[in-house]
Amino acid sequence: MPTEQHETLKWIGGVDGCLRMIDQTRLPVEFAEIDCRDAAAVWEAIKMLRVRGAPAIGIAAAYGVCVGLQTVLDADEPAFFRRLRETVEYLASSRPTAVNLFWALKRMETKADSLRGRPVRKIAESLLTEARAIHEEDRQMCRAIGRHGAELLRDGQGVLTHCNAGGLATADYGTALAVFYSAAESGKTLHVFADETRPLLQGARLTAWELQQRGIDVTLICDSTAAQVMREGKVQAVVTGADRIAANGDAANKIGTYCLAVLARAHDLPFYIAAPSSTFDLSISSGAEIPIEQRDPREITHGFGRQTAPDGIQVYNPAFDVTPAELIAAIICEKGVIRPVNEKTIARCFLKAREQEGKSGATNETTASDSDKAV
Amino acid sequence: MPTEQHETLKWIGGVDGCLRMIDQTRLPVEFAEIDCRDAAAVWEAIKMLRVRGAPAIGIAAAYGVCVGLQTVLDADEPAFFRRLRETVEYLASSRPTAVNLFWALKRMETKADSLRGRPVRKIAESLLTEARAIHEEDRQMCRAIGRHGAELLRDGQGVLTHCNAGGLATADYGTALAVFYSAAESGKTLHVFADETRPLLQGARLTAWELQQRGIDVTLICDSTAAQVMREGKVQAVVTGADRIAANGDAANKIGTYCLAVLARAHDLPFYIAAPSSTFDLSISSGAEIPIEQRDPREITHGFGRQTAPDGIQVYNPAFDVTPAELIAAIICEKGVIRPVNEKTIARCFLKAREQEGKSGATNETTASDSDKAV
Repeated sequence: MPTEQHETLKWIGGVDGCLRMIDQTRLPVEFAEIDCRDAAAVWEAIKMLRVRGAPAIGIAAAYGVCVGLQTVLDADEPAFFRRLRETVEYLASSRPTAVNLFWALKRMETKADSLRGRPVRKIAESLLTEARAIHEEDRQMCRAIGRHGAELLRDGQGVLTHCNAGGLATADYGTALAVFYSAAESGKTLHVFADETRPLLQGARLTAWELQQRGIDVTLICDSTAAQVMREGKVQAVVTGADRIAANGDAANKIGTYCLAVLARAHDLPFYIAAPSSTFDLSISSGAEIPIEQRDPREITHGFGRQTAPDGIQVYNPAFDVTPAELIAAIICEKGVIRPVNEKTIARCFLKAREQEGKSGATNETTASDSDKAV
Repeated sequence: MPTEQHETLKWIGGVDGCLRMIDQTRLPVEFAEIDCRDAAAVWEAIKMLRVRGAPAIGIAAAYGVCVGLQTVLDADEPAFFRRLRETVEYLASSRPTAVNLFWALKRMETKADSLRGRPVRKIAESLLTEARAIHEEDRQMCRAIGRHGAELLRDGQGVLTHCNAGGLATADYGTALAVFYSAAESGKTLHVFADETRPLLQGARLTAWELQQRGIDVTLICDSTAAQVMREGKVQAVVTGADRIAANGDAANKIGTYCLAVLARAHDLPFYIAAPSSTFDLSISSGAEIPIEQRDPREITHGFGRQTAPDGIQVYNPAFDVTPAELIAAIICEKGVIRPVNEKTIARCFLKAREQEGKSGATNETTASDSDKAV
């Protein structure tokens, strides 16, 4: 189970404290934490991928606003708000396409604006509370996904995962990996097979490390070995995360995910996606509308400090692929388990959740359980 | 098309000449050839994988006997044969499990024994002729496989391959890659996608280099991208080599091959195996009898000159997998195209070939064409 010293992100102290994070660029060879005491340190950590994963980046940025304001805690209101704007703009420039980054910064700014007129130290304290709330909400989201997903797995099963949809990418338990942690918490023993996940090896570097640290039985394999692992009956399910899910359930995720979904179907195994509801993009009707980002050929030809392919070779390096809904047995989100996966069940899940929230003011969590029964 | 300077192995000069080979350990970054002028140089080249691939190793060893005898060309017969035995034993110790190595050395020894009583320089000349014959027979085998396989592909098609079943592993054209070279020779333009082939990256290091050198359009992909390439309609067939084929057509090959066969079936694409008839092991009835060799975890965890997975991680690293016959659309061997693939068609192919050889004393090649029509 996750231990205190291995939290991806952690705020140390009060309003004059600091943001401590695992330096993920040094994993898996070395475990090192860094303390960010000013906005520049947080910016550098996001830029250099010391912290990565959309939810984790959002949380880091929120805390980054807090450290950025520490030198103006005794300033007047205009100076405080000037610094706030500067810090927000500066942090937003660290990873220009990270949606959660902008979302978290906007939320911090809106909070501050709502508190104008109060003493700036009080505003700073409230902003730290807001950052902690963003952090805590993400933790609750992970835990809810974990609880829903764990219901789908049985004691003694083997499960296969791809890339890193884990605690290192979020506040706490992750999404796909949350399912394994929750299953373990409820006393189930799982045998996880982790795809190394070429080209960037997030599975080997991060998932293998994270599961090992948390005491989950994990075996590392090459991506192309997944079919053989299925054929030998070593796994009974596949669980991955997702980057974006269309209204019909088509899911974009790290390249290689579609491959696993096809293999799972061929071996009669359920293929599950675990992702927060924020991953759904109901404005697009199907995966055909998701553009496929092409990445640097050098990730494949020069990936690990050494050239492994000839100069001038053509490379096809899509960052992700789209798994069609019909290959997905269920989508596990914090609202519940969506099964079967189609436009209707997804719409119903979101509608039910909204109704529940309206009726009872319930947290996402309670809503999730109710909606689990419903969909 | 293959150019003289890029031959995997080449004998330079007469009986006092030398064996020139591409140093494959320096590919793809550097093209370098080495001249082996004594048995020790050949032994080292085989041991250090400067030459690899079963057929190529056999040919190198045969030439290795020739260079090993160069200092006893004027000796008496006992001294000559003593050196022959020593050289054969020594070369046999370079790769202890390489069947072609032992086969080639035995053939050279048998040839020498049949010539006892003649002047030793004449025997040495005949042994060089024998080594050249082994080399030439392998070349003919490659070409025959290429011709048969090329019939299965159409102009403009995309094809996917895995690992290196190419000229670098044989005398000349290879097996799977021979199909592409022959198709190109007959004027067909193909677009080859080469899996990088984790963990040892033979696809990236060798296949990509070899196809690029020979002017074939080639694109390198990560193994897990193959499914996406199929989904996008970029390939119309898959062709790989094989290490061992059972009597029923189940085929063992580099890990990841079974994955491709499953994906090809799911995308309605033909999956072909190209392999010489020496690959068939008719003494085993199915792939279930093929033991799966487990390889060093460090191939995965420390593969690129850098540690990419945590210390102590469990690894599952089978060297190959077995593709069941029912997923193989056809097996292309030098005797012809076996289709459909099952115990009956395989037995018939071998029987027909034997009959043809008996009847007409035809070369393997002619037999192959006849049997192609028959099976």
